[in-house]
Amino acid sequence: MKLGDIGEFGFIERIRKRAAAASHLLLGIGDDCAVSRVAPGELLLASTDLLIEDIHFRRGWSDMHTLGRKSVSVNVSDLAAMGGRALNLYLGLGIPADTSVEDLDAFANGVLDACAAYGAVLAGGDTCRSPGPLFISVTVEGSVPEAQLVTRAGARPGDLLWVSGTLGDSALALRELLAGRRPPALLAARHHDPCARLDLGRVLAVQGLATAMIDVSDGLLADLGHILDSSAVGALVERDVLPLSPAFRAALQAEPALLDLALCGGEDYELLFTSPPEKAAAVAALAIEGVPVTQIGCVLPQDHGVRLVDAQGRPCAPPRGGFDHFY
Amino acid sequence: MKLGDIGEFGFIERIRKRAAAASHLLLGIGDDCAVSRVAPGELLLASTDLLIEDIHFRRGWSDMHTLGRKSVSVNVSDLAAMGGRALNLYLGLGIPADTSVEDLDAFANGVLDACAAYGAVLAGGDTCRSPGPLFISVTVEGSVPEAQLVTRAGARPGDLLWVSGTLGDSALALRELLAGRRPPALLAARHHDPCARLDLGRVLAVQGLATAMIDVSDGLLADLGHILDSSAVGALVERDVLPLSPAFRAALQAEPALLDLALCGGEDYELLFTSPPEKAAAVAALAIEGVPVTQIGCVLPQDHGVRLVDAQGRPCAPPRGGFDHFY
Repeated sequence: MKLGDIGEFGFIERIRKRAAAASHLLLGIGDDCAVSRVAPGELLLASTDLLIEDIHFRRGWSDMHTLGRKSVSVNVSDLAAMGGRALNLYLGLGIPADTSVEDLDAFANGVLDACAAYGAVLAGGDTCRSPGPLFISVTVEGSVPEAQLVTRAGARPGDLLWVSGTLGDSALALRELLAGRRPPALLAARHHDPCARLDLGRVLAVQGLATAMIDVSDGLLADLGHILDSSAVGALVERDVLPLSPAFRAALQAEPALLDLALCGGEDYELLFTSPPEKAAAVAALAIEGVPVTQIGCVLPQDHGVRLVDAQGRPCAPPRGGFDHFY
Repeated sequence: MKLGDIGEFGFIERIRKRAAAASHLLLGIGDDCAVSRVAPGELLLASTDLLIEDIHFRRGWSDMHTLGRKSVSVNVSDLAAMGGRALNLYLGLGIPADTSVEDLDAFANGVLDACAAYGAVLAGGDTCRSPGPLFISVTVEGSVPEAQLVTRAGARPGDLLWVSGTLGDSALALRELLAGRRPPALLAARHHDPCARLDLGRVLAVQGLATAMIDVSDGLLADLGHILDSSAVGALVERDVLPLSPAFRAALQAEPALLDLALCGGEDYELLFTSPPEKAAAVAALAIEGVPVTQIGCVLPQDHGVRLVDAQGRPCAPPRGGFDHFY
């Protein structure tokens, strides 16, 4: 069965029936706007991401349920980076006319399952035919108590620099896929099905542990650069303590230049944050759902720029810059 | 100059510099999420629309500034239909690599100008390259005092049925464009540069005049159907009192079947609403910025369905149904 057989309203109705309710959502899919109540004292957060076929994903590389989950996770990751909780998701879909209803159902179920996992509800969206590739646009709304908001702008010299999880896995998987090879399953999962660190971000915000935070989507050094720009500080990064997965280390042993993927690869969706040194023990003790946090450097005055050093503290040559979709 | 010359971050920086500030917006473009404060007692509204090249627009048909304005107006129209005011806009852009920076600047200026006209600020978004057509995703947030929210669900038998402005102009312009003809300027403007009836929607909500409301985007009868479904009522529509522009009337005289475009054409972005009969004088007196409101029928019990009648009250054959992007 093709999408043309059930039509735009038919597809929306299929999604509407499966969308969850939530106490904050007075009206979801089915009126001109979704209508929500933001709790008193909470700030509203919102972020938009695009996922475009053959730019961000290829349909043969992962199933549609996984793609639906990823579409939500990459967007919710932005809420995590501000310490927020998730409220509503809005989904825009430009769908090639020959797409099967089965694929769309799988995609929608992936979106809905991920929403449920993050405590969000699918509250609205728009669908129409695409004369080109599959276009996915996701906008998420969340909220955070005013005193708990963590921006990119609060890092101070002397703060320690931390990152969650491991780096480079997604970029390494992508490299294998682009080369026509099948990446190891754990790496592939990190690329196709990343997990937004929403719980970790909330804990950091609630406990007041993070002075600045960002999610690593453009690559560690590029996203660190955003914190440094916003906070008007510099940083030292210890190359040899970057957290790497066993699968990544195995590949690295054969090809040392792969370390650049951990520094610049993109799509890690880990949290990169700064924290005062007196809170180091509290941060190190955090391992939400088995995700480690690792100290990878510290914050310096702005005139130091970014200093990448090896285990002996000697400067390392910086790798090629971060990721820009237009290059 | 092509987009590739300035890159994704270069383009975002160009927009960020021109984006307006607003007291409700604590953080706009440049952090992981936009951060806003929703006023106490106000409900949050949000809606998403897609505009895809060669489905919703053709680039040769209107200039990029006008396309930018339209992208905002069609989305803000959903806020108008709930009686809301506009707060934030989020823009997703999938851009063909050969797009000129001049075109993108014109588009962005159109978006920003329309935001300013509606009292909204561009608070965030995402851009990347499109391997297919130009892909535009717009999500708007707004708010409305809780007591003033107007949904599709409040129409009651006996209410009168009203519509703002004139109907069919946009659809007639589109028909001419699709036939390779140049539509009269007033019709073309209605198609390329619609105006969201935000002020009218606010006045209806503030004065408590509307029991149910929707914006006419899929065509009068289709959108009336949404009100009737949500409110569990029927309606009588008087075919011969539909508000038509002089340009539309001129075309209608030569081709009477064109009346179907006023009934089903889509993209009018007028407000269709129901109102208690005792408020008819107050509604009729509304003409916000020269936009008339016209009584075109009344609400009936649900078992009457939709009855389309002529000036003598005789039933008319219903036209072909509304607009569905997948057909």
